[in-house]
Amino acid sequence: MSSLLFAGVGRTVPSKVKLLLSFSSRCAISNSDFLNYPLKTLVLQSPNAGFKLSNVRYKSNTTVGRSATESNGKKVRLVAGAALVAGLVAGLSHFQRAEMKSTVAVHSETGKKDADDILEKCTCFMSEPVTDIQVLQKNKEEMRTKMEMMILQTQAEFCKAVAEVDGGTFQVDRWDRKEGGGGISCVLQDSNIFEKAGVNVSVVFGQLSEEAAQQIRSRGKSLKRKDGKLPFCAMGVSSVIHPKNPHIPTIHFNYRYFEIEEADGSKLWWFGGGTDLTPTYLNKEDAVHFHKTLKDACDKHDRKLYPEFKKWCDNYFFIKHRGERRGVGGIFFDDLDSPTKEDVFDFVRSCAKAVVPCYIPIVKKHLNDSFTSEEKQWQQLRRGRYVEFNLVYDRGTKFGLVTPGSRIESILMSLPLTARWEYMHEPPKGTKEAEMLQVLRNPKDWAQ
Amino acid sequence: MSSLLFAGVGRTVPSKVKLLLSFSSRCAISNSDFLNYPLKTLVLQSPNAGFKLSNVRYKSNTTVGRSATESNGKKVRLVAGAALVAGLVAGLSHFQRAEMKSTVAVHSETGKKDADDILEKCTCFMSEPVTDIQVLQKNKEEMRTKMEMMILQTQAEFCKAVAEVDGGTFQVDRWDRKEGGGGISCVLQDSNIFEKAGVNVSVVFGQLSEEAAQQIRSRGKSLKRKDGKLPFCAMGVSSVIHPKNPHIPTIHFNYRYFEIEEADGSKLWWFGGGTDLTPTYLNKEDAVHFHKTLKDACDKHDRKLYPEFKKWCDNYFFIKHRGERRGVGGIFFDDLDSPTKEDVFDFVRSCAKAVVPCYIPIVKKHLNDSFTSEEKQWQQLRRGRYVEFNLVYDRGTKFGLVTPGSRIESILMSLPLTARWEYMHEPPKGTKEAEMLQVLRNPKDWAQ
Repeated sequence: MSSLLFAGVGRTVPSKVKLLLSFSSRCAISNSDFLNYPLKTLVLQSPNAGFKLSNVRYKSNTTVGRSATESNGKKVRLVAGAALVAGLVAGLSHFQRAEMKSTVAVHSETGKKDADDILEKCTCFMSEPVTDIQVLQKNKEEMRTKMEMMILQTQAEFCKAVAEVDGGTFQVDRWDRKEGGGGISCVLQDSNIFEKAGVNVSVVFGQLSEEAAQQIRSRGKSLKRKDGKLPFCAMGVSSVIHPKNPHIPTIHFNYRYFEIEEADGSKLWWFGGGTDLTPTYLNKEDAVHFHKTLKDACDKHDRKLYPEFKKWCDNYFFIKHRGERRGVGGIFFDDLDSPTKEDVFDFVRSCAKAVVPCYIPIVKKHLNDSFTSEEKQWQQLRRGRYVEFNLVYDRGTKFGLVTPGSRIESILMSLPLTARWEYMHEPPKGTKEAEMLQVLRNPKDWAQ
Repeated sequence: MSSLLFAGVGRTVPSKVKLLLSFSSRCAISNSDFLNYPLKTLVLQSPNAGFKLSNVRYKSNTTVGRSATESNGKKVRLVAGAALVAGLVAGLSHFQRAEMKSTVAVHSETGKKDADDILEKCTCFMSEPVTDIQVLQKNKEEMRTKMEMMILQTQAEFCKAVAEVDGGTFQVDRWDRKEGGGGISCVLQDSNIFEKAGVNVSVVFGQLSEEAAQQIRSRGKSLKRKDGKLPFCAMGVSSVIHPKNPHIPTIHFNYRYFEIEEADGSKLWWFGGGTDLTPTYLNKEDAVHFHKTLKDACDKHDRKLYPEFKKWCDNYFFIKHRGERRGVGGIFFDDLDSPTKEDVFDFVRSCAKAVVPCYIPIVKKHLNDSFTSEEKQWQQLRRGRYVEFNLVYDRGTKFGLVTPGSRIESILMSLPLTARWEYMHEPPKGTKEAEMLQVLRNPKDWAQ
């Protein structure tokens, strides 16, 4: 959906912290750590679990949007905020973690371990969660908590992998949204390997604007207002990475969760997301690796998913006025609301987990590829097309630009550092540029 | 409205001709030549002629869209097409003109002079008119003929002035639109002074798509379909000029005419247009010169026009998500349909005539200004904003992108050759960059 959907629904930047990405051994995020996260997931026994794209509704009495005062245990003010952020800075992490643990210790003994789990994970994030840690601890079984923890973990994992390969340092900006919620934007700009790398998390809530509701209705959902209002909660992680070397492709991914409370108190919820690759030059081996990694992630849940979402991706990332896809695709899905919330979350988590293994090996492979100024120029023209797609078609960008209180810098961090438009440019037949264009005009199956 | 409204409603490029811009003395286009064009214009005696922006309808029985077979005189096939285009090439013009005259001579004696007038003007254009010359000659009193001649003359005048100051050569592309009409795109790219200079004429007709009709209805016009159809004719000249030197501003102008035939046979018509300046650095003297030249053009017709259209321009070229105007403005108007068609045409012609004098002196003044790489970088960031406006907000670009048969290269020739996006860029206080931004956030009156 979006380059940076929900990336920027907020405008103030209360704190801006330059973090040295130095993960301690305890902070190393691995698949196993993540899978140990205590979720009541429904493990699908067969790869045919009946994922559907219909508007199945999940009933719930909980309200959309949460505050720290909801706690039903003792009201505890955690030493979070700047302290937790600082806790990620090399050398201070052990001290900070200790301080937080002692604060949490006032919880009941039975709740202590759960609270520690949340806290432990939080110390590995790029910044403290958007939602108060206390609220997350109290509501650890809610999907919003699970999803917020998952997107923050995805952000941290991916930033770590990108920073390691680049050698540079992410700029981390926390921002609040006046209307509710906020986000964490991590950007590496004009660095060693990457021209621009943006990884964004946002968790926003409030009332849906009529324009935004209209965009959702246009996808076939009927939204019944409650006293003229539509409370919503949306969260997601999204990223666009533009490398300098034209032989290293651009990647985009986005995983998101949406809840809307309707007039009768019922909740509409769905997940969306996708990961797609935009090379400047076609490298078949890269395309196969990328797609196969995504297919493996999908196949664990349902073998029908990859073919469907691969096709959806080709159709979605289509620059209609050019008759070209943006890149070699990947997967894309939206409005995913069955069979159960847990099933879909489990699938989305697998997709998010696949981001590092589908992309980083490609980056490493081409790190030292030499390139000519003509190749750089062709990359710049393709960057121009990237801008065209994002500004003209991308639903998430459009949603962000019309949503009051948007944080524009986070929405538009998806745009490349530089781009080019030449009048009537058409690569000569038989060239590598023409080969690329051919694939953009006629998508192929890469994971067969 | 549009960077290049109606610029690209067509997709085939049957002929592509590189023209050496070599105007003979007979081809020199001056104000006086243009004013001698035999129009029954209503010269307004007082600067208060009652221009209104309401949907006054002009009744007519003529149909929208014309073909060469409409001729009520002898059917004459003019030696036009490639011959006339070639006639603009230096050294051949006299021969070609003579040949055409002899062909036209089969007209009745009374019609001969008028036909010669049209032909004489056509030889000075960048390419032959979009409409068959024979049809123009036959219907010389119709607004569509007057407007087509005027926009072609504006294109030629402006291209000549730009090419003279640059020393480069415009690439001229003629294109046909399968659904009806066509255009002439003139582009100077990566030249001496200009990074990209596009000057486009288009004359298109056919049936309005529902999406396009919806865009027009959203401006308050009720369109009644005839057998489910809405015949329309639209024509305009539009241009965007991006110089290399950051001390030379970008200019955009567009003048257009629209006719729609409704179910009862009545015609809805209106004019639109505007000229605006986008500097990288504020130069107050330039802004004053630019606005005063436009004001003078407006004041000849009605002293109320400039203030209203200046304000409209500031409101229209507003990058909402940035809270910035695109540049220092100029004039902008749309849906202009009173007091009479001739009055409005006369006004629009005055505005088009003001393009060269409002811009070219500014270009010449800064031709030899030196600049730093930091200044070039700031220009590139502002170019990024230009792209954002054109792709996200510009009505003409959006209209073109959704209109079937659009010629995308002509619509998007408004985009700069290169642009840049930096995350969280904000110029420090007290700098020239901050001064520019201040004016973009708070438009000023320049023609007081």
